[in-house]
Amino acid sequence: MISYRNLDQSSAFKKLQVLAGKAHSLTAAQIRHCDATLAAGIHYNWAARLPRNVAAEKLLPLLNELAQEQQCLEKYRALLKGEIMNRSEKRRVLHHLLRGELAGTVTEGATDLGAYYRSQMERIAAFAHKIRHGKLLTPQGQHYRHVVQIGIGGSELGPRALYRALRNWRRRAEDLEAHFISNIDVDQAWVTLQEIDTNRSLFIVVSKSGTTLETARNERYVIEHLQQAGIANPRAQMVAVTAKESPMAADERYLERFYIDNYIGGRFSSSGAVGGLLLSLTRGIEVFRELLQGAHAADQAALNNELTHNPPLLDALLGIYERNICNYPAYSLLPYSDALQDFPAHIQQLDMESNGKTVNCHGSLLSYPTGALIFGGAGTNIQHSFCQLLHQGSTIVPMIFVGFQEPQSLPQAQQQDLATHQEMQQLLNANLAAQVVAFADGESATDPNNSFAGGRPSSLLYGKQLTPSALGALLSFFENRVMFQGFLWNINSFDQPGVQLGKKLAQQLLEPRSGSSEDSAAALQSYANLLGMPKL
Amino acid sequence: MISYRNLDQSSAFKKLQVLAGKAHSLTAAQIRHCDATLAAGIHYNWAARLPRNVAAEKLLPLLNELAQEQQCLEKYRALLKGEIMNRSEKRRVLHHLLRGELAGTVTEGATDLGAYYRSQMERIAAFAHKIRHGKLLTPQGQHYRHVVQIGIGGSELGPRALYRALRNWRRRAEDLEAHFISNIDVDQAWVTLQEIDTNRSLFIVVSKSGTTLETARNERYVIEHLQQAGIANPRAQMVAVTAKESPMAADERYLERFYIDNYIGGRFSSSGAVGGLLLSLTRGIEVFRELLQGAHAADQAALNNELTHNPPLLDALLGIYERNICNYPAYSLLPYSDALQDFPAHIQQLDMESNGKTVNCHGSLLSYPTGALIFGGAGTNIQHSFCQLLHQGSTIVPMIFVGFQEPQSLPQAQQQDLATHQEMQQLLNANLAAQVVAFADGESATDPNNSFAGGRPSSLLYGKQLTPSALGALLSFFENRVMFQGFLWNINSFDQPGVQLGKKLAQQLLEPRSGSSEDSAAALQSYANLLGMPKL
Repeated sequence: MISYRNLDQSSAFKKLQVLAGKAHSLTAAQIRHCDATLAAGIHYNWAARLPRNVAAEKLLPLLNELAQEQQCLEKYRALLKGEIMNRSEKRRVLHHLLRGELAGTVTEGATDLGAYYRSQMERIAAFAHKIRHGKLLTPQGQHYRHVVQIGIGGSELGPRALYRALRNWRRRAEDLEAHFISNIDVDQAWVTLQEIDTNRSLFIVVSKSGTTLETARNERYVIEHLQQAGIANPRAQMVAVTAKESPMAADERYLERFYIDNYIGGRFSSSGAVGGLLLSLTRGIEVFRELLQGAHAADQAALNNELTHNPPLLDALLGIYERNICNYPAYSLLPYSDALQDFPAHIQQLDMESNGKTVNCHGSLLSYPTGALIFGGAGTNIQHSFCQLLHQGSTIVPMIFVGFQEPQSLPQAQQQDLATHQEMQQLLNANLAAQVVAFADGESATDPNNSFAGGRPSSLLYGKQLTPSALGALLSFFENRVMFQGFLWNINSFDQPGVQLGKKLAQQLLEPRSGSSEDSAAALQSYANLLGMPKL
Repeated sequence: MISYRNLDQSSAFKKLQVLAGKAHSLTAAQIRHCDATLAAGIHYNWAARLPRNVAAEKLLPLLNELAQEQQCLEKYRALLKGEIMNRSEKRRVLHHLLRGELAGTVTEGATDLGAYYRSQMERIAAFAHKIRHGKLLTPQGQHYRHVVQIGIGGSELGPRALYRALRNWRRRAEDLEAHFISNIDVDQAWVTLQEIDTNRSLFIVVSKSGTTLETARNERYVIEHLQQAGIANPRAQMVAVTAKESPMAADERYLERFYIDNYIGGRFSSSGAVGGLLLSLTRGIEVFRELLQGAHAADQAALNNELTHNPPLLDALLGIYERNICNYPAYSLLPYSDALQDFPAHIQQLDMESNGKTVNCHGSLLSYPTGALIFGGAGTNIQHSFCQLLHQGSTIVPMIFVGFQEPQSLPQAQQQDLATHQEMQQLLNANLAAQVVAFADGESATDPNNSFAGGRPSSLLYGKQLTPSALGALLSFFENRVMFQGFLWNINSFDQPGVQLGKKLAQQLLEPRSGSSEDSAAALQSYANLLGMPKL
């Protein structure tokens, strides 16, 4: 039976607090030993993630005990079965189901939800095929060249990260080029529309509720812009991705409408229509299907009872050790892959929006640290930027590195370039290997300025190449890592109450007269004045 | 006389530790009162940055005392005069001089360095003018359309942030479009070259030493790629930005060579040839000059003896209060401006590379926290991403907001769009004002899940519009904030020893046999194997 208990009530947690031993350096044996398979060719190595002064044989059993006390796998299985895991909003959490069933069918009334999600994906596949192969032309009878996703938060960051990661994966003539309009800042919509051929652009408007302020306003801006450019019926170039109950779903002027539901949180929606339509248009449906397969296989790996064969659970637990025992406030995601340069921003949202909470799932305030800060960037660029602080700063920041044996461009490089592409990948990987060792072991020097204390923990996700299925596995790894940490901290990772207060106050400025304290209303108005807003 | 003393030896610091009072909310009077002019139309408001339970009348005098004890302005003046402020490398620190003199001429032997920097800028202006106006054509006799900056770290992040910030500022037909190749990851160089017309591209190779691994390798890749594409003499489309002593400076095959020197650190080099050439080619020399003027005016404001009229010093001190008294580990930079979306990554480098150190300028280990972590993003996007943690997470993260009364696109919007652009800016700014107040004052609710504790401090930089001079003022603000914090912590903000160890270890993998411990060499080789590198 599942129970919800705070982290500090766990007996394993108390035992973890007193663990300590002799400092040790990385060894080849340890690196060989601390290695697990995730899925889709992705492996996970945690040798350098182990605390420097604690023996793995002592730490791992306690982490395992902690996972059991907090019932991580039971809760994951309950989620897969469709139980209400987002308890504040009384919703199921079904993004795994978008990738396949792992605990039988999930039904709602007479509806098989897995089958329903697949049917939406079939509709997307058929639509994307028609667009890509000129069976569905622009109102002016041309092939579409651009697709512009109008959406914010999860409707942008995930799809953008995945698109960027696969932009150079088997480029084909029929691929559409993607653009994004997310911010309410008109400069963004304006410049995007300046830079594309709007006559040959398809617009995807993404809003689950159909009422997201930024998205609705940007959609209206785009429509007006297209009309001014002489396009009589802009909605004939627009499709909607929304919930069945939303006003957008009822609007028959869209070229097409695809559905998402309340069981798929925005930040988890890349595997559904929100990411699927964009990726199918830009890379082809089979690329998106491979991505889902990779994610599904990694979701399955996350069910493994053996801790050392369950990478997301193990990494989640090591993160808890660092956050709650060592008091490290942040971690950093460092892919040595240019294609993954937008990935850290997506994982930043995924993690900080999910676990940036201090109330447990019974509604009581927690007294221990929860969700860590996260930031990142692509190597080797980061070695010339913030790595200075990671090496020698006063705050220890654990890291997750990602690396690949081959560059993504290899299959497309000209014959004569193959050796060059491989040689440059070796340069990249020599730097990656060097960073992991430098962070772990450090180096002492007579000049303290050139001394490195080491003891900066990092794990490494690695594989042969960043394929669509490898990308899916990486996405699943981070989603499940976040989920497990939520279970361990005993918080609800699936709501986002923090988005609301700002919205409400902004609304007061735009349509005054809703109740608020006098001081706060005056303060709000004062800032509005500084920013050039008229007196309301 | 200047002395270098650790922060915790300051008597003001000890007094700061015991400050406490009654919690208060933001008031309109406070917002009016806590406001200072920076330069170039940019203002600084710190009302919401004041700690919630400390009276400003108590805090500010102590911060002022601290600034005096640590001799912030004396040290800044010494730096301006050309004293050796980067003591580990025995170098002057002269990026302010790129923008103009503030403490008389600085000479080296017979050379007036300010005049020398200006002469380089004149050469850049003349060169950019020729390229932009077709007086200097491609080897095939065409106008140049693209400029590709090949450089890493400070040679990319600053120029990229400034270019992105001004990409839509008065677009003209003669503007070149910028691209960047920085990472040693071949996927980046490959895709960049796929997407441009290489025949009509000018390449700027930026490396002070002329030997930066990534830059040298990428330059070679580009040369080979151009040759394969049938361009006989690629260097005829390449210019160098380098130190006079470097091998690149001696290479006469470049179309042109521009010089930087050792007194301009990479992360501070945007105001010199590193940023100036790119911005002059893409936006015109007068735009770059306006930027320098804005930065110069803000550099001057940083000399102000009145703390409340010296925004970068005040913000630096508030940051020290938060880092060393409140123990907050990070801060966040949140521009409500799409044009500034790449700005946080530059400031992240600027700050974390400068102050991510734990050794004081005498070479002794410090016992107090130094450089904070920093991450950021553009609003309102961040409200749908990591702001959840900033509102309700367990780690308090102070924030610096940036906002403008008018969108940057306004001068170029069609007549009929003016009202729309202004209305959308109001939506953006209503959200910005709402966030500042929500973070400061919070809101209590019966459901703890919907409660906001408030007490999340933030300051606000604001102005009429993001002009080139306003951008220069913002750049100066952050550079000087970082410098003042370095003085306060008593560290050398101008070296970067942390970049070295990784380089050395990577070199061992590429050219084995330099001495290192057996364990460490074996560990290095183990990781190399995982990443598909051959046995060395």
